[in-house]
Amino acid sequence: MSPKRIYNFNAGPAALPLPVLEEIQQEFLDFKGSGMSVTEVSHRSKWFDDVVNDAVARVKRLLQLDDRYKVLFLQGGASMQFCMIPMNFLADGDSADYVNTGTWSTKAIKEAQILGKTVQVVASSEDRNFAYIPKNIKFTPGATYVHITTNNTIKGTQWAQLPDTGKVPLIADMSSDIFSRPFDAGRFGLLYAGAQKNMGPAGVCMVVVRDDMLERVPDNLPTMLKYTTQAEKNSMFNTPPCFAIYTVQLVLKWLEETVGGLESMAKVNQQKADLIYGYIDDSNFYKGTADTDSRSQMNVTFRLPNEELEKKFVAEALAQDLGGLKGHRSVGGCRASIYNPTPLKAVEALVDFMKKFEKANS
Amino acid sequence: MSPKRIYNFNAGPAALPLPVLEEIQQEFLDFKGSGMSVTEVSHRSKWFDDVVNDAVARVKRLLQLDDRYKVLFLQGGASMQFCMIPMNFLADGDSADYVNTGTWSTKAIKEAQILGKTVQVVASSEDRNFAYIPKNIKFTPGATYVHITTNNTIKGTQWAQLPDTGKVPLIADMSSDIFSRPFDAGRFGLLYAGAQKNMGPAGVCMVVVRDDMLERVPDNLPTMLKYTTQAEKNSMFNTPPCFAIYTVQLVLKWLEETVGGLESMAKVNQQKADLIYGYIDDSNFYKGTADTDSRSQMNVTFRLPNEELEKKFVAEALAQDLGGLKGHRSVGGCRASIYNPTPLKAVEALVDFMKKFEKANS
Repeated sequence: MSPKRIYNFNAGPAALPLPVLEEIQQEFLDFKGSGMSVTEVSHRSKWFDDVVNDAVARVKRLLQLDDRYKVLFLQGGASMQFCMIPMNFLADGDSADYVNTGTWSTKAIKEAQILGKTVQVVASSEDRNFAYIPKNIKFTPGATYVHITTNNTIKGTQWAQLPDTGKVPLIADMSSDIFSRPFDAGRFGLLYAGAQKNMGPAGVCMVVVRDDMLERVPDNLPTMLKYTTQAEKNSMFNTPPCFAIYTVQLVLKWLEETVGGLESMAKVNQQKADLIYGYIDDSNFYKGTADTDSRSQMNVTFRLPNEELEKKFVAEALAQDLGGLKGHRSVGGCRASIYNPTPLKAVEALVDFMKKFEKANS
Repeated sequence: MSPKRIYNFNAGPAALPLPVLEEIQQEFLDFKGSGMSVTEVSHRSKWFDDVVNDAVARVKRLLQLDDRYKVLFLQGGASMQFCMIPMNFLADGDSADYVNTGTWSTKAIKEAQILGKTVQVVASSEDRNFAYIPKNIKFTPGATYVHITTNNTIKGTQWAQLPDTGKVPLIADMSSDIFSRPFDAGRFGLLYAGAQKNMGPAGVCMVVVRDDMLERVPDNLPTMLKYTTQAEKNSMFNTPPCFAIYTVQLVLKWLEETVGGLESMAKVNQQKADLIYGYIDDSNFYKGTADTDSRSQMNVTFRLPNEELEKKFVAEALAQDLGGLKGHRSVGGCRASIYNPTPLKAVEALVDFMKKFEKANS
């Protein structure tokens, strides 16, 4: 009997490519002829070395990283990065610029402040409930870094272009749009992404960091909180989250070999976003919550005429095997997360359902 | 074709119970009828809530914890605990006692010192290369806590009994012997265990913490580094390492329902240890590295007459599907890790091989 599979619009943990899941399942009791599960092999073995090295090589190819960059796989999620970044890079007397575009940016700012670091919030869209990405931002000359959140899962906004920060290194939380389209990684001092949206399961956070940033890391930090620790040990100073890294490796392989890289991925993502936003724009029943020029291609947030109907929408959708459409608990409404692994046909099925639901309820 | 499976004596990541691996494989594409993989369901869903709550309930039953204790599932491994413990509990003017029984204790002490905390190393077995557990230790009256490592994976030693620390809370790294036998958890202020030895895969660290310890946590720590953060959110302040927690839950279920709890587990572990140590003691070829009264029931460390033979031993064993017998790279020699999931028949097969190897090479 073939397993039941639904269309999964969860915001994270989120859908994974079916071929990846099938490969994991198929080799779960005997990984590469080792006679052990991938969860049982030593992280010091050739088997696991190959996994990490392949994952790193794929990230470097996909993001076209030069030799100045290290790719790390860390624990603690993006939330741990919120404190590690200021700890590692902001010395006394330094100041960093932050752009506040929603819940996750707000948390990143708060963690720097808890540490007593100097941060300038140079732009914010809080005045209109984070429904847009600020424009024409004046960054502080001489800031140590500029921190942004490239895609805002909860509010459904995304930077259409990366900001020009001149010589100041850009740092970005890219948890929810990493690998969704090509971008100029060479402008980044550091970028990070919790894997559980576009690149894998929960339990690992990818960090890409440039060597000049590593030179800023102070000696007296706890070993596990210094970027240099894992940078010097290829993410294996201590036992890494092996299964999560292995799954990431397979997702990256799928992205390169099945999808065909970031250009191809971007085309599919554009098609998916155009389809659902096109329909929402034509409808008087559904209403997008983000400004048109700030819309996310990853998280489509929308409202129905009232909360009663929103509840009904989410329930009836699930009954038709369209899952995960409830908005974040902090904002309500509806949300369709359409990350890389979500196929076009899932979005087609969703839009079909939306049309029928509108007809039946308006 | 049934998958190849070897006897796995890895020190961690280590063997997992075969029925657990089979259950994961079987439901990997459709978790509990959700139509999603366990790696794809939301951590805010009923499906995943059930996983965490069941895991917590099983830990509480197995360790007979009363209501003062919280069970947390954190990221960063035991290595992250080395810094979190002093950060959370040691205020200015406080002092903690540490017992140094090897590599992991040494690292725990170092992390407290990096933070500028006051620690007293009240006992150490470094004088004889950590081959024993110190006895008759004089703890410091009024110490904030006493930190020990209950089992030392690299040196093959284990505390036969927990030390009496009077009113001072005991804190222990139990990564490599948690759940291997019953013990009085009520004496602990905090205990922690990286899952990848006795209780699951890499990528999650269990922390059991008592409420009076949580009251010591200062306000001004980074959110992700405060025990109170995850204690107040049932380990779901941010996205947890879902797959690792799920696997832990299944291992705990196996321990309760198939093995029959800690008493039964301890009996099997005793049988396994008696079998292999009994043979080593009778042999003039193999030589245990730990003092008899300090021997670990989990990690059996031994030497052969010379390094050449040790290399041959490891290679020939692997050729006969007995894997992971090389000692830690820092000490050399051989090591058989025989954690909970390693069945008696694996140890029988190993001792058989050891006999044949001795005969052929002496």
